[in-house]
Amino acid sequence: MSEHVLVINAGSSSLKYSLIDAGSGKAAGSGLVERIGEAEGRHLHRGPDGETSTDGKIDTHEDALRAALDAFETHGPSLDAVEVAAVGHRVVHGGSRFADPVLIDDELIDAVTALVPLAPLHNPANLEGMRVARRLFPELPQVAVFDTAFHQTLEPAAYTYAVPLAWRDDHDIRRYGFHGTSHAFVSAESARFLGRDPAGLNVIVLHLGNGCSAAAIRGGVSVDTSMGMTPLEGLVMGSRSGDLDPAIHAHLVRELGWTVEEVDHALNFDSGLKGLAGGNDFRELSTRVEAGDPVAQLAFDVYCHRIKKYVGAYYAVLGTVDAIVFTAGVGQNGADVRAASLGGLERLGIRIDAQRNDAAADGSRLVSADDSPVAVLVIPTNEEWQIAREALAVVGGS
Amino acid sequence: MSEHVLVINAGSSSLKYSLIDAGSGKAAGSGLVERIGEAEGRHLHRGPDGETSTDGKIDTHEDALRAALDAFETHGPSLDAVEVAAVGHRVVHGGSRFADPVLIDDELIDAVTALVPLAPLHNPANLEGMRVARRLFPELPQVAVFDTAFHQTLEPAAYTYAVPLAWRDDHDIRRYGFHGTSHAFVSAESARFLGRDPAGLNVIVLHLGNGCSAAAIRGGVSVDTSMGMTPLEGLVMGSRSGDLDPAIHAHLVRELGWTVEEVDHALNFDSGLKGLAGGNDFRELSTRVEAGDPVAQLAFDVYCHRIKKYVGAYYAVLGTVDAIVFTAGVGQNGADVRAASLGGLERLGIRIDAQRNDAAADGSRLVSADDSPVAVLVIPTNEEWQIAREALAVVGGS
Ligand SMILES: Nc1ncnc2c1ncn2[C@@H]1O[C@H](COP(=O)(O)OP(=O)(O)O)[C@@H](O)[C@H]1O
Ligand SMILES: Nc1ncnc2c1ncn2[C@@H]1O[C@H](COP(=O)(O)OP(=O)(O)O)[C@@H](O)[C@H]1O
Repeated sequence: MSEHVLVINAGSSSLKYSLIDAGSGKAAGSGLVERIGEAEGRHLHRGPDGETSTDGKIDTHEDALRAALDAFETHGPSLDAVEVAAVGHRVVHGGSRFADPVLIDDELIDAVTALVPLAPLHNPANLEGMRVARRLFPELPQVAVFDTAFHQTLEPAAYTYAVPLAWRDDHDIRRYGFHGTSHAFVSAESARFLGRDPAGLNVIVLHLGNGCSAAAIRGGVSVDTSMGMTPLEGLVMGSRSGDLDPAIHAHLVRELGWTVEEVDHALNFDSGLKGLAGGNDFRELSTRVEAGDPVAQLAFDVYCHRIKKYVGAYYAVLGTVDAIVFTAGVGQNGADVRAASLGGLERLGIRIDAQRNDAAADGSRLVSADDSPVAVLVIPTNEEWQIAREALAVVGGS
Repeated sequence: MSEHVLVINAGSSSLKYSLIDAGSGKAAGSGLVERIGEAEGRHLHRGPDGETSTDGKIDTHEDALRAALDAFETHGPSLDAVEVAAVGHRVVHGGSRFADPVLIDDELIDAVTALVPLAPLHNPANLEGMRVARRLFPELPQVAVFDTAFHQTLEPAAYTYAVPLAWRDDHDIRRYGFHGTSHAFVSAESARFLGRDPAGLNVIVLHLGNGCSAAAIRGGVSVDTSMGMTPLEGLVMGSRSGDLDPAIHAHLVRELGWTVEEVDHALNFDSGLKGLAGGNDFRELSTRVEAGDPVAQLAFDVYCHRIKKYVGAYYAVLGTVDAIVFTAGVGQNGADVRAASLGGLERLGIRIDAQRNDAAADGSRLVSADDSPVAVLVIPTNEEWQIAREALAVVGGS
């Protein structure tokens, strides 16, 4: 019998859930509760009979999870029937402490609470999700799966910033990296797809969603990644700046009279594609680029230039590269991004096949030419499946 | 008859000067006035008879330049005898306005003054140097040579940060790049050294001094560079952090109660090699590394890891690379840095020759293997010579 894990991803005003068949990775049911605490909330549930949507006020994360349970009860699939083996929680920041998924107990809750200063936007919501789920499923083992864990293999040379060493040793200021669940899943899948032993494969993964990050993975082990102490560093994202001259903060404070919190907010929420072109949806951006909109074109060019620089940087870090893998919304669908960011890299052994790259397709696929020494792949990420498998491994499942 | 240019580099409390023979690049005389305005200043002058050093209070930049003129008079060479054709001033920030050296007049002074907000640490001192030299040499043409000018060829995709576009369009927040005089000189010299047409040569220059920057130069034209709006971004430097997660400012303000000015100061003056290992002198660092000091080793590794990433990034930006060129104090002398930062890049066609690299030598030289598709060069930079030539070109000299 296949085992199911309820995967929970709690945001500050949202709660995503999926009932994952850990064998196949399929979601038997899933849903999203949005605008928790606001005047009008919304609950979307997908079950065996399709999608149902309910509007109405949802006060707390506890109410949101109760609504999910009700939906499973009413619209299926029945949680009792599938026998849930564990609850798996996505937790954004595990600091230097967590290199693996961990069974949730009071001590773990305390440890994640201690990490809130490193992820003030994310960890509090994840904690709320864990607390609520423990109340509603007191009998089920629950597991925290950290976004940072996969990157705990970075060497000090890759994770240490060139700042006073005490900032790292006393204040935990270092590179952690995020999207680890996705990078782990996608790099393992790429080895499977290529029929290669993951231990012998060097891969650069480009996770391009609303958040974007690159990772250099040597033999299944993360050796460098573009997000840093927080998910703000690195690639250009939907609304985040990524890399920036660190003198710009003081300049804005000095010249424009901003507070550092205002700068921080602008870099997280009003920058990236949204800052450059007015919107963070890549589909719209691509449409505007095709229509010849120069502002959209600039945003597209900045986005792809940054990706190209990271591909080169991680090529140098790895020394040899077997595959470059695109994943997440933009990575899986943006043929234009893949073509532009890998264009002109023949000298590095990277040759996209235009027809393969442009072909509308869904699953894992090769988009490089047959004679390209470096394989370029599109691999759909499945963070829920990865969380389900890791949670199950912790609770002693298959 | 060869022409001479008096090159002036004015810092906030120092003034460097060199009387450059624009034909040979040799300094007929040169000097450094330090600790201007402090209780005890110092003036070092090098002339035909060697070095003289004078201690004593030096109140202003005008006094400093007068002391220089006295030293030329007393110790030689005589400025009247060599017939100075122009005064060339190093100016750090030329913003988007200056892509070339410019004859100094009142309008130019106003334009550089308007750029002070972009370079509050540097432009005011450069301005003071220009004002003083115009008073003392009213009859000589004077030329401003900008550190940023060489990088004005960057495309918008390379110079635009992923922040609200208005920050760039209304507030000049973009990448400018610095060390342009050095990058221009060294890339031209590398073509000469290789006997190649500069227009057909792609070069990555690594200027590694107290300040450090990398540049990607295609056919003599700068297409990307690591320093940004200010000289803080990019490589690890003597006391500057280079690249950093831009969320760290708000974190330090929030968690440690710092002001953004304190953060900015720490990133400029207490970071880099000094922050990691306690000192910004690379010779001392190398000695400690050889002695097995793990803290020095970490600083060295972080420094070289960052260089390696930029080499890869600019390799990807350029597509093909003919030469990688090391210059400035660390670049010219640090065989250990060259070996570590280019190690493992055989797949990119980069093969250092250990014996050549380790050989004690002074001039321009090849340190890669004969069968290395990419030439690795050491080229001593000579910013004064470049400034002298550019100044002379502006005033219509040879
Ligand atoms: N067909 C498509 N073409 C281009 N971009 C797409 C397409 N579908 C989705 N995207 C983009 O993917 C991004 C969201 O990716 P996703 O992986 O869902 O994000 P996340 O999980 O980080 O929230 C959005 O910018 C969206 O516009
Ligand atoms: N022989 C050497 N070996 C290693 N590093 C050296 C050597 N000589 C000078 N340096 C280093 O070069 C750096 C200064 O370079 P320089 O080009 O003079 O700086 P800048 O012009 O930026 O002030 C210092 O870190 C110094 O320790």
